[in-house]
Amino acid sequence: MLMPDPHHRDLMLKQELSQQVGGRVELTPAERLLDSLLHQLKVKEMAILPFPPAKHFFKVRHVIQKSPVFKLLQKMPKGKKSQGFSGRSHLSFDKIILYPAGAALHIHSSALVSADWLVLNATYRPNCYICFMREGSVRFIFSAYMPFPRWGCSFWSRLDTLRAGLSDVTAFDNSLMKNFTLFTDDPETAFPTQDAAWKRFEEIFVALSGLVTYAPVFKDYIYQGLKELYDDNIMYLELRVGQSRAYELDGTVHDKAWSLEVYRNITEKFRENHPDFIGSRVIYSIHRSLSVSTVKQVVQEAIEMQRQYPDILAGFDLVGREDTGGSIWYFREALSLPSELKKNLTFFFHAGETDLDGTEVDRNVLDALLFNTSRIGHGFALVHHPLAKELARTRGVAVELCPISNQVLNLVSDLRNHPAGVLMSDGHPIVVSSDDPTLFGTTGLSYDFYEVFVGIGGLSANLGTLKELAMNSIRYSSLSSLLKDKAIMLWEEKWNKFIADNSKS
Amino acid sequence: MLMPDPHHRDLMLKQELSQQVGGRVELTPAERLLDSLLHQLKVKEMAILPFPPAKHFFKVRHVIQKSPVFKLLQKMPKGKKSQGFSGRSHLSFDKIILYPAGAALHIHSSALVSADWLVLNATYRPNCYICFMREGSVRFIFSAYMPFPRWGCSFWSRLDTLRAGLSDVTAFDNSLMKNFTLFTDDPETAFPTQDAAWKRFEEIFVALSGLVTYAPVFKDYIYQGLKELYDDNIMYLELRVGQSRAYELDGTVHDKAWSLEVYRNITEKFRENHPDFIGSRVIYSIHRSLSVSTVKQVVQEAIEMQRQYPDILAGFDLVGREDTGGSIWYFREALSLPSELKKNLTFFFHAGETDLDGTEVDRNVLDALLFNTSRIGHGFALVHHPLAKELARTRGVAVELCPISNQVLNLVSDLRNHPAGVLMSDGHPIVVSSDDPTLFGTTGLSYDFYEVFVGIGGLSANLGTLKELAMNSIRYSSLSSLLKDKAIMLWEEKWNKFIADNSKS
Repeated sequence: MLMPDPHHRDLMLKQELSQQVGGRVELTPAERLLDSLLHQLKVKEMAILPFPPAKHFFKVRHVIQKSPVFKLLQKMPKGKKSQGFSGRSHLSFDKIILYPAGAALHIHSSALVSADWLVLNATYRPNCYICFMREGSVRFIFSAYMPFPRWGCSFWSRLDTLRAGLSDVTAFDNSLMKNFTLFTDDPETAFPTQDAAWKRFEEIFVALSGLVTYAPVFKDYIYQGLKELYDDNIMYLELRVGQSRAYELDGTVHDKAWSLEVYRNITEKFRENHPDFIGSRVIYSIHRSLSVSTVKQVVQEAIEMQRQYPDILAGFDLVGREDTGGSIWYFREALSLPSELKKNLTFFFHAGETDLDGTEVDRNVLDALLFNTSRIGHGFALVHHPLAKELARTRGVAVELCPISNQVLNLVSDLRNHPAGVLMSDGHPIVVSSDDPTLFGTTGLSYDFYEVFVGIGGLSANLGTLKELAMNSIRYSSLSSLLKDKAIMLWEEKWNKFIADNSKS
Repeated sequence: MLMPDPHHRDLMLKQELSQQVGGRVELTPAERLLDSLLHQLKVKEMAILPFPPAKHFFKVRHVIQKSPVFKLLQKMPKGKKSQGFSGRSHLSFDKIILYPAGAALHIHSSALVSADWLVLNATYRPNCYICFMREGSVRFIFSAYMPFPRWGCSFWSRLDTLRAGLSDVTAFDNSLMKNFTLFTDDPETAFPTQDAAWKRFEEIFVALSGLVTYAPVFKDYIYQGLKELYDDNIMYLELRVGQSRAYELDGTVHDKAWSLEVYRNITEKFRENHPDFIGSRVIYSIHRSLSVSTVKQVVQEAIEMQRQYPDILAGFDLVGREDTGGSIWYFREALSLPSELKKNLTFFFHAGETDLDGTEVDRNVLDALLFNTSRIGHGFALVHHPLAKELARTRGVAVELCPISNQVLNLVSDLRNHPAGVLMSDGHPIVVSSDDPTLFGTTGLSYDFYEVFVGIGGLSANLGTLKELAMNSIRYSSLSSLLKDKAIMLWEEKWNKFIADNSKS
């Protein structure tokens, strides 16, 4: 052999490609046609300067919205156009649905809907009071009477009265919106460090809480959340739900079971109106800043809840920033409770959302697996743990990849350097999700899919990759085998229609 | 088992650590002592805000110089303090030698010495002419008479006359220095894109060429280059040498063999003065922007040179930016020549210094291996190629990791996201090098070692990692087995002295 045999080289290149996520998906002739169109669009996309996935999402969202890849999308099957309160041009996403995306498995309930819905719908309801914190944040409460003053906050103002006295209500509403999202034109200045981003991140959840836990808002909020996902062709949702309890105008506070039943009922109602929506399930979550004894108590509750509501409650997770909160091993006593009591509780742990390589925090990926986690939330650090990575792969524990979240929270700037690129090229089990759409200025999964498909996956990611990622989202969900089969069938129908529609041209 | 068995967990954590680079190195009691000190210093280092490896090297070089990790270094065995022209405070690096670093295997000959030596020594020699390009660059020539005007450049000025007429020579010299280095306080503004950084990068090589190819400068330049490395405890060098030919004052131009003999002679002279220096070898290189036929011709020359100068010529490489130059496969006809002619030519290919994942360029890593490369220059993209990665590992083809270069040329900003982290945690063969010290404002390998050890390796990288990386630089060199054994013995002596010296306290 004088020169490497071109045929042999070709085989090796093909073999390597077949190792990537979706590399073994057999494409039909129609799919191959669409794939080659997609490839051409991607080549064009890579010539855009600056290359969108290399830049902070906040600075390129408008570029992504207009990018050549999305020209394909206008021909796509999608849900009805979002109604009502999302008419603002910068928040109108009805053209950016990438393809039937399957399921969203990593979203937090407090950051489920777009900021404009919160401002233009929720805060416009009667009896909504607002107060302004010294450091620039806000708090809300719905109340039949003037609420008791809140420490560190201005006196409460009723929003309808407040707005009536304003000359520029739109400006006020826009300023309110800024309290619900990290989205800003200059993210590098606003959030120069992980600490700064996380501080604001946690603040927003507190600001939102009085608004979205008001029972009537809560119900509509969930419905709206499902709708925004459905409009982006999402068929199924698994939602991390925290410990806050819903309240009524008279101050009555509901218990947590009430919330679970609302999740179930609203999902049912949504499915009645959208029969091709599969449903949603809840992952009961607790903040990792709390004590072992508190977490222990919540684990006990979760066991009971999973027994009582097996249809709606999928399992348990620890949420909040890993770098500053307790590690999985720190909570080991609480997390061993289910097996100690011989009870069932499925874990869906956040793990490895960190760049503190080699520290205690960084052991969460291995510990999540030792506690038999079903999936790994983020797993940003997983590629630095070959043993844990192999274990996850063997056990079929998927990584919930949320690229925009990782970028906004300053783990990585140029998404071509996102470690999931390593996982993708090696066919590791991955699902794509959006983490906190409200906070990141996204709706649905299309933006995250864009970053994964164009940025992280590079030119080698193809239609097979998209197909596998979508199917993964059902395969690695907590649905029963029966429901998975049903979901896959329904998804395939949509997928085939999408392929057929796009192969005509 | 109610909770993951702590003993079992501990074993897994240890097993994972043992997989990293240096993870199987057995440390002596004295080494373990030093390792634990180093670990404490690293923990402190990780608390520095901003964390130096997360930021552009140009912005944190002064922080690195003062960092707690370097407190250890003051006690270290090092070569004599750099003499003569490196007295400026921002270029005085004599305190930053990390440890006996072994060999430097990836440095380009045109960027070997510090910019201050070039300005304060080379340009101060008699008969040095300068002209100023319209776009702000400069050109040099040594000549016995006024040189012929150069297109696009001002008239030539003799530097001694020019300096005599200046009120602030230091300011002028500083401005000259800026023509030899990318180093600047505001790199993000100066080089916002890869294109901008590479443009300036290539420009500097042109500006340098008339200066360093002047035969008398050339000889001292090589000596100075070896000295700067030696002062940083480097024992051996493999240098990428391009196609430019040396010239004399009367305009005589030497052939390439002359340069090779100078490399050999100067190295010999340096070794006479520094008997613990092992030597240097040359990797004959050609720019990948040239034609296949030119490359073919140079390959033929290289074959002949390697036959004629087997002691000094180690092999062949293609240099220059991969994204815009010809790929390895593009040059396949030229690169097959040695095996076609049944001649010997060792390859040391640059490959995967790119983030154009999935493109033609991105196939260089596999093609380098198909052409039996001895090492992979950069291999930034290797982690996206599981097949090539496995092949490289099996064959013992080391990656030449140059983190500061990758950062300055905008492949990655936060070095914790450098893909070599994946390679390191998995024990992939790696050597550390500095690529272009002149251009990046470094001398020796210590800065790059700092980034690898503190940034890329994280808290898990330890003294064993350093030891293995240093030994790798000899193991994966092109030295004969005999010389490798000698080098290892010499290195071990230095290492043991370093350990002994640091264990006393």
